[in-house]
Amino acid sequence: MKFTAYILDVLTDSVYPARITIEDGIFKQIIPIQVTEETKIDVDGLLLPGFIDSHIHIESSMITPAQFARIAVRHGTTSVICDPHEIANVCGIEGIEFMIENAKTVPFNFYFTAPSCVPATGFETSGAVLNSDEIEYLLQKDEVVALGEMMNFPGVINGDGEVLRKLELARQYRKPIDGHAPLVSGQDLDKYIEQYIITDHECSNFKEAIEKKQKGMKIMVRDGSSAKNMEALLDFSARIDHLKNQESFGIIPTEVLSRRIHSPIFDFIVSDDKHPNDLINGHLNLSVKKASELGIDIIKAIEMVTINPASHYSLEAGSIVTGAKADFVIVDNLQDFNIKETYIGGECVFDGENVLFDVEDVVVSNSINADKKCASDFDVYFDGDECEVNVIKCYNGELLTKKSTATLKTKDGIVQPDIYEDVLKISVVERYGGNTITNAFIKGFGLKKGAIASSVAHDSHNIIVVGYSSEMMAEAVNTVIENRGGLAVVSEDFSDSLSLPIAGLMSNEDAFDVAKKLDVLHRMASALGCKLDSPFMTMAFMALLVIPSLKISDEGLFDGDNFEFIDVIRS
Amino acid sequence: MKFTAYILDVLTDSVYPARITIEDGIFKQIIPIQVTEETKIDVDGLLLPGFIDSHIHIESSMITPAQFARIAVRHGTTSVICDPHEIANVCGIEGIEFMIENAKTVPFNFYFTAPSCVPATGFETSGAVLNSDEIEYLLQKDEVVALGEMMNFPGVINGDGEVLRKLELARQYRKPIDGHAPLVSGQDLDKYIEQYIITDHECSNFKEAIEKKQKGMKIMVRDGSSAKNMEALLDFSARIDHLKNQESFGIIPTEVLSRRIHSPIFDFIVSDDKHPNDLINGHLNLSVKKASELGIDIIKAIEMVTINPASHYSLEAGSIVTGAKADFVIVDNLQDFNIKETYIGGECVFDGENVLFDVEDVVVSNSINADKKCASDFDVYFDGDECEVNVIKCYNGELLTKKSTATLKTKDGIVQPDIYEDVLKISVVERYGGNTITNAFIKGFGLKKGAIASSVAHDSHNIIVVGYSSEMMAEAVNTVIENRGGLAVVSEDFSDSLSLPIAGLMSNEDAFDVAKKLDVLHRMASALGCKLDSPFMTMAFMALLVIPSLKISDEGLFDGDNFEFIDVIRS
Repeated sequence: MKFTAYILDVLTDSVYPARITIEDGIFKQIIPIQVTEETKIDVDGLLLPGFIDSHIHIESSMITPAQFARIAVRHGTTSVICDPHEIANVCGIEGIEFMIENAKTVPFNFYFTAPSCVPATGFETSGAVLNSDEIEYLLQKDEVVALGEMMNFPGVINGDGEVLRKLELARQYRKPIDGHAPLVSGQDLDKYIEQYIITDHECSNFKEAIEKKQKGMKIMVRDGSSAKNMEALLDFSARIDHLKNQESFGIIPTEVLSRRIHSPIFDFIVSDDKHPNDLINGHLNLSVKKASELGIDIIKAIEMVTINPASHYSLEAGSIVTGAKADFVIVDNLQDFNIKETYIGGECVFDGENVLFDVEDVVVSNSINADKKCASDFDVYFDGDECEVNVIKCYNGELLTKKSTATLKTKDGIVQPDIYEDVLKISVVERYGGNTITNAFIKGFGLKKGAIASSVAHDSHNIIVVGYSSEMMAEAVNTVIENRGGLAVVSEDFSDSLSLPIAGLMSNEDAFDVAKKLDVLHRMASALGCKLDSPFMTMAFMALLVIPSLKISDEGLFDGDNFEFIDVIRS
Repeated sequence: MKFTAYILDVLTDSVYPARITIEDGIFKQIIPIQVTEETKIDVDGLLLPGFIDSHIHIESSMITPAQFARIAVRHGTTSVICDPHEIANVCGIEGIEFMIENAKTVPFNFYFTAPSCVPATGFETSGAVLNSDEIEYLLQKDEVVALGEMMNFPGVINGDGEVLRKLELARQYRKPIDGHAPLVSGQDLDKYIEQYIITDHECSNFKEAIEKKQKGMKIMVRDGSSAKNMEALLDFSARIDHLKNQESFGIIPTEVLSRRIHSPIFDFIVSDDKHPNDLINGHLNLSVKKASELGIDIIKAIEMVTINPASHYSLEAGSIVTGAKADFVIVDNLQDFNIKETYIGGECVFDGENVLFDVEDVVVSNSINADKKCASDFDVYFDGDECEVNVIKCYNGELLTKKSTATLKTKDGIVQPDIYEDVLKISVVERYGGNTITNAFIKGFGLKKGAIASSVAHDSHNIIVVGYSSEMMAEAVNTVIENRGGLAVVSEDFSDSLSLPIAGLMSNEDAFDVAKKLDVLHRMASALGCKLDSPFMTMAFMALLVIPSLKISDEGLFDGDNFEFIDVIRS
């Protein structure tokens, strides 16, 4: 293949016209050409390196890696570094190997990290444990380019033996270590970085990110479905304040500082989680455009999803140079930034309208090992007319919860929810054969009747359910069990479900179909009174114990501030 | 040690005030502090990371590594990556190990590269050969951080087995490969880069550097004694032309381009060779200042000698962060850029006046194995009244020569030099026990009488001599032999020498003493009529066969364009 085009060169921050020859999937020759006003050349477009998402959990898109590739190439993404942390919690090594094998069935660059924290805590039942032996097994694989996000920062800081061993293995195999250290700062951060943990994607404010950057970390600016930190980290006024502060020292001249305003300071843009309904609309292409709208030089923004991650993870990608794999994107221009075509290994995989490769269904075995439930399984008992209970208070779009309390009435010894005060019931049902259940209370969902259930519940992915009545909660959970995993909305008026039979996390269908079904479930939940934008996502994080303050696992109601279980009914 | 200072942070291109604690040689704590107009803090200065010269041949400074450290710290240099290519040509592995061991005797960070091309060609007699086995031995050493400059680009491009094996070994040991590819471009360059040769320090024009950079190389801007490429590569107008060219494409808005004018585009600043008389005046500190005068943002220039090389070669240096070795420099300000103090591993090694560590003399064995010469050894014979000869034409400050011819008279069958036309005699005397001599003619030195000789003659370092009379040439060479190496100026009126007994390349004395002696020799050569600024340097490169067009080795007069020997007397 030979053609003439403008190349966006991320190595020199510039654009130049060149005659390009692609052979055997690589850029065989790139010959810069002269262009003058007179000789308007017939160019085939503006070529950018394919985009790289350097931190994503594909399971959050509820589709297989192969299906993910089909939707991602529409948005110019050609490579992802995915942390198969979710499936690892469900199926361990076998789940990770499924992801790696499935990824190989499509023309797309999948890289993986070895999930470092499975399970996330010892306060829940997960489907698997990855100790340092399993981590070593994974680090030996060529597909595994890093140790996945080290979420156990207390373990790092306090020198937990098994944690340190995993970090040591990563260094031994010369693979970088990804971090995850929300709000960690000062000497704790120093100790964390001392272990060669370089990246962090959890920064939620500018000051936090600057401290980490100044201490040598590489900052991943997160622009995903669950967390959106781009405004906070790339905001024009925050950068100006930061620069003005230096100006006041009188050391760097004002004119030098003013040039810096368009520099992003930080290193990568990542999505972390991308839900199907967001993913169908765009991926890193939208993030780059948004960064540009925030005042970042668009070429610098493009570098954050091309050469920067490629250099850090030693990927053979990220720039358009002779000898490199011909992964590239054609855009209309840098303002509108529409993806016209996507190429991987010199092959067109998206022609502006259609994706030019197919995906085969995955044959799956059932990963949901739980007995059918009955209404009484979801009851909380109290001997008396009313009682005071601990209540999880959740917020729209946030992972954090607060501790709250409520006084609830009982009926026949069973504690009743309170619609007036929006206190509903929440339960986590163990799905790995143990059949334990924890029942508690939650505020913030707004459901007036019915129940919603899901087998996506971070990080152990037991079945989580929120509802008004025990009957509907049992029916919702049973629907999930029958579907071998997935999401369900159940009520006396209408019911529907999205089946996620692959590890209870992913569908065999494509992103559009999954998004459509999820959309129906969202509308149904809303029709039942739910006030949350993404009730299933919010519910999924109610089981993520490492984020404070009050959460729930199959083993109990969990106080994340003191890292201990507490009683549902206050004594 | 605790103090308060402004930190120049190369990770965020900014300056911030902080309270710093140094313990056990590392930055134990760095706590940013608030400064307002009211609370003028008592700061101890502006801290920069210590400078790193990522490509230097220390032998060119004619002093030992330990003595080099003593002078370098005065200029803020705390680390060098040195290619012991010169001593390797003389003494092989033993010479390299001497450099490594000598380096350990002082508080300074010496890193080494494994010299990839010893000898430089097969057309000369060197003291050693480093084949791939020796390279593997060197690459296993912790002190060796890269494969040294691959000068044999024909060997790379044509797939020479031994060359490819050395490159493969570097990849196998995961050590980067340094390049050396003057004016190589197009498909030849593509093939060169295909072997993962990443750096190049030989760019002499902007276009050459841009091509290499766009193809993925990292460009070392050279600012040394022998070659000065900074003006060509960092020149304001060249950058503006480059940017204007893009502007004309209409793809990047003008206001975006204008911000780029102060960006250097390229990666490192290196010296390559630093002669003693230059080294006493400055090192990278002067280069950074010069770059700033050329319009480069000074913080970006500082990054070219700190974080950029540190990242590329994975050195634990280059930025001021908690946990890092406390190598730093205190400057007065970014405009005057005077080095006030230099610290290595938390210890002050230069207090603004004195260097605070000593150096011990090296005990050396004689590396010059050559018999005393007599005048007739330097005669060229011809049976006739006059003859036409091939003449090397050299230029002040250039490594390149041109081919020239001259008609010379004979006397008693001996071809005579011609002062009127400035055609002098040049000879290379083998020093490794073979005792061969090649005698030829050279134009450009301007000597009216006497001779100058030196055991520094790239790359094999045989003894090279230029002079008017055979008697004086013999005396000059014999002085070098008696001194066990070094430089000599000999004439009927005055004579002097600089002894370089360590491999015939280095002195035990310090940089100031060596510079002073060299200065005397330069004045003497000038008094004898020499027109060159650095006659010994120019003479040393007359034996460097890989640079065209006409050079000389102990084995013959060498045509570098056709890579073959030619006769001195034209037939």
